[in-house]
Amino acid sequence: MTIQYELELIGTFFFAISGARTKPEKEQDWFAASFIGFITAIGGGSLRDILLGSYPLVWIGDINFLYAILAGIVFANIFFNFLFRLHRALLVFDTLGISFFTIVGTEKAQSLGVQPEIAAIMGMFTAVMGGVIRDTLTNEIPVIFRKEVYASACLSGAVCYLVFDHFQIDRTPNFLLSAALIAVIRYLAVKYKLALPSYGRKKTQP
Amino acid sequence: MTIQYELELIGTFFFAISGARTKPEKEQDWFAASFIGFITAIGGGSLRDILLGSYPLVWIGDINFLYAILAGIVFANIFFNFLFRLHRALLVFDTLGISFFTIVGTEKAQSLGVQPEIAAIMGMFTAVMGGVIRDTLTNEIPVIFRKEVYASACLSGAVCYLVFDHFQIDRTPNFLLSAALIAVIRYLAVKYKLALPSYGRKKTQP
Amino acid sequence: MTIQYELELIGTFFFAISGARTKPEKEQDWFAASFIGFITAIGGGSLRDILLGSYPLVWIGDINFLYAILAGIVFANIFFNFLFRLHRALLVFDTLGISFFTIVGTEKAQSLGVQPEIAAIMGMFTAVMGGVIRDTLTNEIPVIFRKEVYASACLSGAVCYLVFDHFQIDRTPNFLLSAALIAVIRYLAVKYKLALPSYGRKKTQP
Repeated sequence: MTIQYELELIGTFFFAISGARTKPEKEQDWFAASFIGFITAIGGGSLRDILLGSYPLVWIGDINFLYAILAGIVFANIFFNFLFRLHRALLVFDTLGISFFTIVGTEKAQSLGVQPEIAAIMGMFTAVMGGVIRDTLTNEIPVIFRKEVYASACLSGAVCYLVFDHFQIDRTPNFLLSAALIAVIRYLAVKYKLALPSYGRKKTQP
Repeated sequence: MTIQYELELIGTFFFAISGARTKPEKEQDWFAASFIGFITAIGGGSLRDILLGSYPLVWIGDINFLYAILAGIVFANIFFNFLFRLHRALLVFDTLGISFFTIVGTEKAQSLGVQPEIAAIMGMFTAVMGGVIRDTLTNEIPVIFRKEVYASACLSGAVCYLVFDHFQIDRTPNFLLSAALIAVIRYLAVKYKLALPSYGRKKTQP
Repeated sequence: MTIQYELELIGTFFFAISGARTKPEKEQDWFAASFIGFITAIGGGSLRDILLGSYPLVWIGDINFLYAILAGIVFANIFFNFLFRLHRALLVFDTLGISFFTIVGTEKAQSLGVQPEIAAIMGMFTAVMGGVIRDTLTNEIPVIFRKEVYASACLSGAVCYLVFDHFQIDRTPNFLLSAALIAVIRYLAVKYKLALPSYGRKKTQP
């Protein structure tokens, strides 16, 4: 219980780092970087809670999330050049973040009594929509349209969690297995440049 | 009653088709196409319900809407090349979609007790905001800024419905007449390339 | 009490003006200009109320806000060329708008019982997020990433208000002082081209 809460804070911290250093190639001031870090960290969970009508939103009800975000922003600034070089390290943090938040979001939606299909979508939204809002505000093509196997890895993990839950697998092993599935799919997709099947069958056109 | 429900499902199906095949010119994978189809189909109604504080959102409370969206996405893929050629057919579906959703949205807002002016805005939002969100995520200029007589046709139909309702015209003929008005305005605007008056009186500038 | 209500209406009027004439360089029709004016005027307050779960939204519960927006749109059209030349005058209106809405938003959030840190963020959101949504829909880089000392001036004023409130300064002088602080920071930032410290320490890179 307490462990989940602490992990969620740590996840928020990582998402704030990932958001704050979104645009290393452009000069930006402290405020803009913090604003983006903040939106990235709270966006997905806030959208989930607004869609489900679950109030108060997590970060509004518990001030510690705000401090986790501030810590992430300060941390990212201090280690900016270091992180900038460690692209691989950031990929690890981002993957851990989406893996964990997918399952946290799925669980929360499930606890509010929605159908499993909706719970899976909410899990995916929790993980990816902060980044989608970040990319939309900064006029980038959203991450889900760039990295093919990103949101779909989250959706797979959420479905896995719900199937195991249906067969009454205990929560802790289920949580770890499903989150690990997301991380593994993401890792393999990046390593082997996997992509989902193309939509629209363009190849049949001359 | 049941007929309205079924028509709403069919409308959702058409919106999902329209969303999924938004970018026929670009290669995209199944997941991205589905995500866009989903957002397009649920965006307008979700925004309306969130603004009005009406929970649960339609598609979260009734899983059939999710299946209507999935059916639309699969259908759009199967008939992709066919639909791609039938630009005129898609225009018909889109026009039927916005005509119907405008009145459904206006009715729902009215049933929640808001003022008529607000109900008309909510009807328009139901019809067009899914497309606006879709265009924003894919970095397009939103449809309402490209096609001049689009959202304004919806607004006209919503106002028509509310005026007839004020004079106690029965619901079914009112629904059909008002939706038809939207379709006719849209048809005439496309056929004769109608545009609204320009804002800002640029012509007086040298 | 009544004065605050009237000032809020006037603020909404100014925000609608600012939104409606966002793109003076581009031809746009009446509907598109009105839509943008509307979104700019209601966006920040709506987001605040949705995040806090405070229903009904201000403009949905009180139709006068809609009329204030319509008045702003008509006014901006009539005086379009005049306003277009008076860039300085618009800057004054915009600055008055954000100064006032920051404190109104901070007060509202505080009255709903959130922590002071959250109230300050909500005050800033009330002032700037209408413009951010406007810029996102029109594919511009959001105002908060362009003008460095803009949202941060709002945040400073909100913090000032909350500190004075903590020390039990009366509401009216506190309101005026904190709003004035925002206006002064913004004025000085524009006049002396002030900017916040750069994030990410680019200068240490060769």
